Amino acid sequence: MVGYKFMGKAHSHAYKDVGMFFDTEANVVMKAICGRDENGVKEAAEKFGWDSYETDWRKMVTREDIDFVDINAPSDAHKEIALAAIAAGKHVFCEKPLALNLADGREMLAAAEKAGVKHAICFNYRFLPAVQLAKQIIDEGRLGEIHHYRATYLQDWLVDPNTPLAWRLKKEVAGSGAHGDINAHSIDLARFLIGEFDRVVGHNRTFVKERPLLTSSSGLSGNASATEKGEVTVDDATGFLADFKNGAMGMFVASRFAAGRKNHNTFEIHGSKGTIRWDLERLNELEVYFREDEPSLAGFRTILATDSSHKYAGNWWPAGHIIGYEHAFVHIVYEFVQHMTTGSPFTPTFYDGVKCQEVLEAVDLSIERGAWVNVDEV
Amino acid sequence: MVGYKFMGKAHSHAYKDVGMFFDTEANVVMKAICGRDENGVKEAAEKFGWDSYETDWRKMVTREDIDFVDINAPSDAHKEIALAAIAAGKHVFCEKPLALNLADGREMLAAAEKAGVKHAICFNYRFLPAVQLAKQIIDEGRLGEIHHYRATYLQDWLVDPNTPLAWRLKKEVAGSGAHGDINAHSIDLARFLIGEFDRVVGHNRTFVKERPLLTSSSGLSGNASATEKGEVTVDDATGFLADFKNGAMGMFVASRFAAGRKNHNTFEIHGSKGTIRWDLERLNELEVYFREDEPSLAGFRTILATDSSHKYAGNWWPAGHIIGYEHAFVHIVYEFVQHMTTGSPFTPTFYDGVKCQEVLEAVDLSIERGAWVNVDEV
Amino acid sequence: MVGYKFMGKAHSHAYKDVGMFFDTEANVVMKAICGRDENGVKEAAEKFGWDSYETDWRKMVTREDIDFVDINAPSDAHKEIALAAIAAGKHVFCEKPLALNLADGREMLAAAEKAGVKHAICFNYRFLPAVQLAKQIIDEGRLGEIHHYRATYLQDWLVDPNTPLAWRLKKEVAGSGAHGDINAHSIDLARFLIGEFDRVVGHNRTFVKERPLLTSSSGLSGNASATEKGEVTVDDATGFLADFKNGAMGMFVASRFAAGRKNHNTFEIHGSKGTIRWDLERLNELEVYFREDEPSLAGFRTILATDSSHKYAGNWWPAGHIIGYEHAFVHIVYEFVQHMTTGSPFTPTFYDGVKCQEVLEAVDLSIERGAWVNVDEV
Amino acid sequence: MVGYKFMGKAHSHAYKDVGMFFDTEANVVMKAICGRDENGVKEAAEKFGWDSYETDWRKMVTREDIDFVDINAPSDAHKEIALAAIAAGKHVFCEKPLALNLADGREMLAAAEKAGVKHAICFNYRFLPAVQLAKQIIDEGRLGEIHHYRATYLQDWLVDPNTPLAWRLKKEVAGSGAHGDINAHSIDLARFLIGEFDRVVGHNRTFVKERPLLTSSSGLSGNASATEKGEVTVDDATGFLADFKNGAMGMFVASRFAAGRKNHNTFEIHGSKGTIRWDLERLNELEVYFREDEPSLAGFRTILATDSSHKYAGNWWPAGHIIGYEHAFVHIVYEFVQHMTTGSPFTPTFYDGVKCQEVLEAVDLSIERGAWVNVDEV
Repeated sequence: MVGYKFMGKAHSHAYKDVGMFFDTEANVVMKAICGRDENGVKEAAEKFGWDSYETDWRKMVTREDIDFVDINAPSDAHKEIALAAIAAGKHVFCEKPLALNLADGREMLAAAEKAGVKHAICFNYRFLPAVQLAKQIIDEGRLGEIHHYRATYLQDWLVDPNTPLAWRLKKEVAGSGAHGDINAHSIDLARFLIGEFDRVVGHNRTFVKERPLLTSSSGLSGNASATEKGEVTVDDATGFLADFKNGAMGMFVASRFAAGRKNHNTFEIHGSKGTIRWDLERLNELEVYFREDEPSLAGFRTILATDSSHKYAGNWWPAGHIIGYEHAFVHIVYEFVQHMTTGSPFTPTFYDGVKCQEVLEAVDLSIERGAWVNVDEV
Repeated sequence: MVGYKFMGKAHSHAYKDVGMFFDTEANVVMKAICGRDENGVKEAAEKFGWDSYETDWRKMVTREDIDFVDINAPSDAHKEIALAAIAAGKHVFCEKPLALNLADGREMLAAAEKAGVKHAICFNYRFLPAVQLAKQIIDEGRLGEIHHYRATYLQDWLVDPNTPLAWRLKKEVAGSGAHGDINAHSIDLARFLIGEFDRVVGHNRTFVKERPLLTSSSGLSGNASATEKGEVTVDDATGFLADFKNGAMGMFVASRFAAGRKNHNTFEIHGSKGTIRWDLERLNELEVYFREDEPSLAGFRTILATDSSHKYAGNWWPAGHIIGYEHAFVHIVYEFVQHMTTGSPFTPTFYDGVKCQEVLEAVDLSIERGAWVNVDEV
Repeated sequence: MVGYKFMGKAHSHAYKDVGMFFDTEANVVMKAICGRDENGVKEAAEKFGWDSYETDWRKMVTREDIDFVDINAPSDAHKEIALAAIAAGKHVFCEKPLALNLADGREMLAAAEKAGVKHAICFNYRFLPAVQLAKQIIDEGRLGEIHHYRATYLQDWLVDPNTPLAWRLKKEVAGSGAHGDINAHSIDLARFLIGEFDRVVGHNRTFVKERPLLTSSSGLSGNASATEKGEVTVDDATGFLADFKNGAMGMFVASRFAAGRKNHNTFEIHGSKGTIRWDLERLNELEVYFREDEPSLAGFRTILATDSSHKYAGNWWPAGHIIGYEHAFVHIVYEFVQHMTTGSPFTPTFYDGVKCQEVLEAVDLSIERGAWVNVDEV
Repeated sequence: MVGYKFMGKAHSHAYKDVGMFFDTEANVVMKAICGRDENGVKEAAEKFGWDSYETDWRKMVTREDIDFVDINAPSDAHKEIALAAIAAGKHVFCEKPLALNLADGREMLAAAEKAGVKHAICFNYRFLPAVQLAKQIIDEGRLGEIHHYRATYLQDWLVDPNTPLAWRLKKEVAGSGAHGDINAHSIDLARFLIGEFDRVVGHNRTFVKERPLLTSSSGLSGNASATEKGEVTVDDATGFLADFKNGAMGMFVASRFAAGRKNHNTFEIHGSKGTIRWDLERLNELEVYFREDEPSLAGFRTILATDSSHKYAGNWWPAGHIIGYEHAFVHIVYEFVQHMTTGSPFTPTFYDGVKCQEVLEAVDLSIERGAWVNVDEV
């Protein structure tokens, strides 16, 4: 694994726990974790339970005792590491975004396909029981024809103008701001649930243009310099309209300036037969309305997706005992391990990373142009 | 009063009850109600408590015993009636939309201003205690600089393809569909709460193109013909992005195809100091988040705006005894009566009707063009 | 009508509006309102729309132009007025509690039955659409055998020790505190929904023993004396366990010391087939869980009881346009008017007032004894 | 560790993960797991990550390489194992209930105190961030004097009469039904939050007297025999009133017959300055109302206790990334490990197990007597 901060911890936890709650075909062995700072990565290796650590990812991705590589380093490093791992014949599990831009993403997909390795992109929210239930309801036709899809992904960690200039706020490292970081999740969920985008038009903002430089960092946060400031080169918020290929109308907004919304990743989908609503802050619940219920008894059902009839939920605790954020990583790791060892079907792959990137870039192009852009155009 | 159906009932109720709960400067006397169908209007006059009825609005608007005229007939009749009432020197209270198009609306505004009569447009939701509280919070600067405004107005009465072709679905009578009927409310609330629109871009749909003809009607509903169908000539749903003059990003959607959402008129506003959220289906409640609360104790407050400290609420019942939909009409009537008799400040007037219409038409123009449109352009 | 304060206003409104929204067999004519203070009652008569006023209820209850008498004076006056009205052959509509004690209540019931007049007690919450829906669900057997019934009725207007000593806090006028005032509503709803009580055991508190004397009053509130205090002689809160005759377990609490709960009248009922939950602060909604729903899709449905399929709702506005607190009075008045004129079935009558009082007194007796008391014993 | 089913899994997970998210003074080494069925325990040892397994707990509790023993075997085995472990000088961490009855519990407490070993009882819910926040608010006096405490712990796995007769339904193994299993949690939280009980009075039910025998078991569930039935010898539901030593009124109900309530462990506490409400099904949230907020802005705050300012939350993920049920075990294990190694303060100990058992038995005695029972009496 390359990377050992916020995502490194979440991924490590998944590798550690997957065998305890799921029957995987092969046991996961946590061989090596890699990072540039030796002290940091050594400590992470011990704390997270890795057998060894490396400071040079080039060395790690070619180690013979390693079958697959997990990449959760900052976004600007994804491409180079992935290509090297693929060249070494390793399976690859990459954090989103796949790459800093669409061209790079396409190159990575082509390389993986050519090499015949298994590849995955970590759109982890697909793997929550409530989201799986939403997918099942739609696939079974219980929502009918889809008319509307609306998503928000709202956080508020940047409302404070003194929040420092982390790598996620620099275009050259992160590629994008709220758009690439969190709209990406919403776009992937929309593709997963109702299909491909046709065209988009958007707008964005960088509300705070300069922020204190970062003097040290840890996870999402860090300490701010008292005196020096630097320019924020990514968006604080991006919203867009979408038309889907199936005719549905879409509406998306991602913001890091939504006071009080900590991780408000939501979708609401209206179909000819009903409606579904979901919110990551209450990730165990799915709200569903069925028009076929008797009129006097129809209402939004709040389904607690912790029953053994809900996908993955039965592997954890009895009904009503909720799971948390990191469980989605356990589930995606379970599915990818099964995919690598048994060839069971698996998405999302690099292909989904590319398709997501297409929509992201089409939105950016629409902002430049002030007009709708067909996604096929980018 | 001209009109005696859904809105006629709501307005009549307001005139009837206003003096019981509010101390108006002048007593409201319900002189005459007017409609084309004599049996219908006669029955309404008795049931709703009007002293007399008329079948010819031209006659009524010139009656000497009448000081002000309430127009809630179908939208295509607003202009002609209003101009006649203004010409007769009557004050005018008009249902939204002001007119079928912007040019007509501007003509009405000019006429009212020239004649020096008092004029109002019935954007009733401004007058709910929770909405007044939202306004007060924003005006006092407690939300800080506004970054985001999002509104939905969702209903589901058209999801059933057998819902008949009522007048609200014909462009020549209604002017517009979900856009003019319910986005209009959202646009007005946005203007009321955070100010003017700069530019917009939208999309719309008519999901069901043909519907059974209507054989009789009552309020919003009626009976459908079993055999004959007619074309739906208005939008079922319209969504749009907006930039506000104050720099805020906006997002609006109106739909009559949102299964399970009966009257889901909501707004959510993010500022640099906090967030406000409101929903008409729980119209007594306002959700508010203040960043200045201690971090460990900050959370969305669900304020039940029924306390005597909340505007209008003290005129009704003790705290916790909620009010309903029709109360907003009582409040707007109270304010307009005070305005007519004491000259107290009053909005929304025809000016607000015109400003709302500008945004509606700019959205329609953006849909034609596939690009952003400046509101000042229309 | 005798009484013209909080309840007087609510009842007057119901008489005024009932004919506008409901087709009553006979028109309601608001003949006369009565109160001891001439200025106060005169003003109320004008404001509320009564044809005349009286200051002597003895005179009013024998007026020949009056067919029925509404009693909402303070509780200690109910008995005398009711007996006089019954003696005069008038139908009687009485606010709860029926009387200050069970013996008085039984005397009133016997008098009304002997005289053959129609009689009603104003347990208004039975008449809300969501409560009617709960009743229907239970009566249709959709909840199965009832296992649990829990109710709260929580307010917070006495948490402030400076809230003055209103008549509702004096035993000789009010008879009881939170117990008789608001547990009474919960007891009636329980009897209405699942049937009779078998035995009870309770506890109570008067948290604040002395309060400032009241110097003037209006509705529920008034001004407090700065210097003089008086003793609170009723309970601030009463809770009790109950066994029902059908075997269900019950749990009830009424308090005026529940900070933040303004009018939190709730019930939750668990049966072998499902669960129902309701809250007066969101009185248009009913939450229902059906065990017969598919396991993966079962969840609490939030039903917005504003559809035309919901009792009374169709008489007001289209679906999603909520009603408020006072509407329940319109509905009970409608039903009682129909009962008086057509003989249609009607509950709750004085009989229900007596049965409720039996439970209230059994709880008080259990508190004295420190042990369970059979309701049949009192 | 003795036991390897539902609780065995939850505890194992805690030992496995604690070092990854918390800085413990000493590393936890998972030496041995013990169970009677060799195949079962062997598989559990591998899956859960234990170094070895035993089938004889007597052997395990005396192994020299073991410092502390975790007991989560069925309740009837707790006493014997704990006494043996204490005799061997091991620290002991015991699942609730401490023992089948109060006398046994007191014996265990005395033995542990005499031996000077560290002891803990697994009332895990104390260790959730939202519950810790509730504790802090109360301890800081922000709720003022406590007037009311109400708790529910509702599940529904027994509503189906075909749910088989698991060990939890047999008095000789489990000691008690819903009362000892889940009221125990509510009693402990009440003691933790507001203090000791004074007196209680209760009632209970066994709604379904006979159930199919169990043919195999796993966790909470298992397969039912088609033909043979056995008697249920514990309560399905127990409710009780309580008076607290501080004067507060209490109300508790535990049931396994509450359709739709899966794990509805809630408390609501009213004080002179505010109210707190919590629900295990949304365990990351705490609802708080402060009377000192401005009247027009006061409302229940929904606090998402995932911020770094919330106890334990900062050890997991950024704000808004919720945690689940099993995290409480990680936290209690962390605190107990610190307690054993550094002597840091720790509750709940066997003392708390005994105090909880006193209340449970006082309630049972009150049911026998049909009257209030002082807790000091048992």
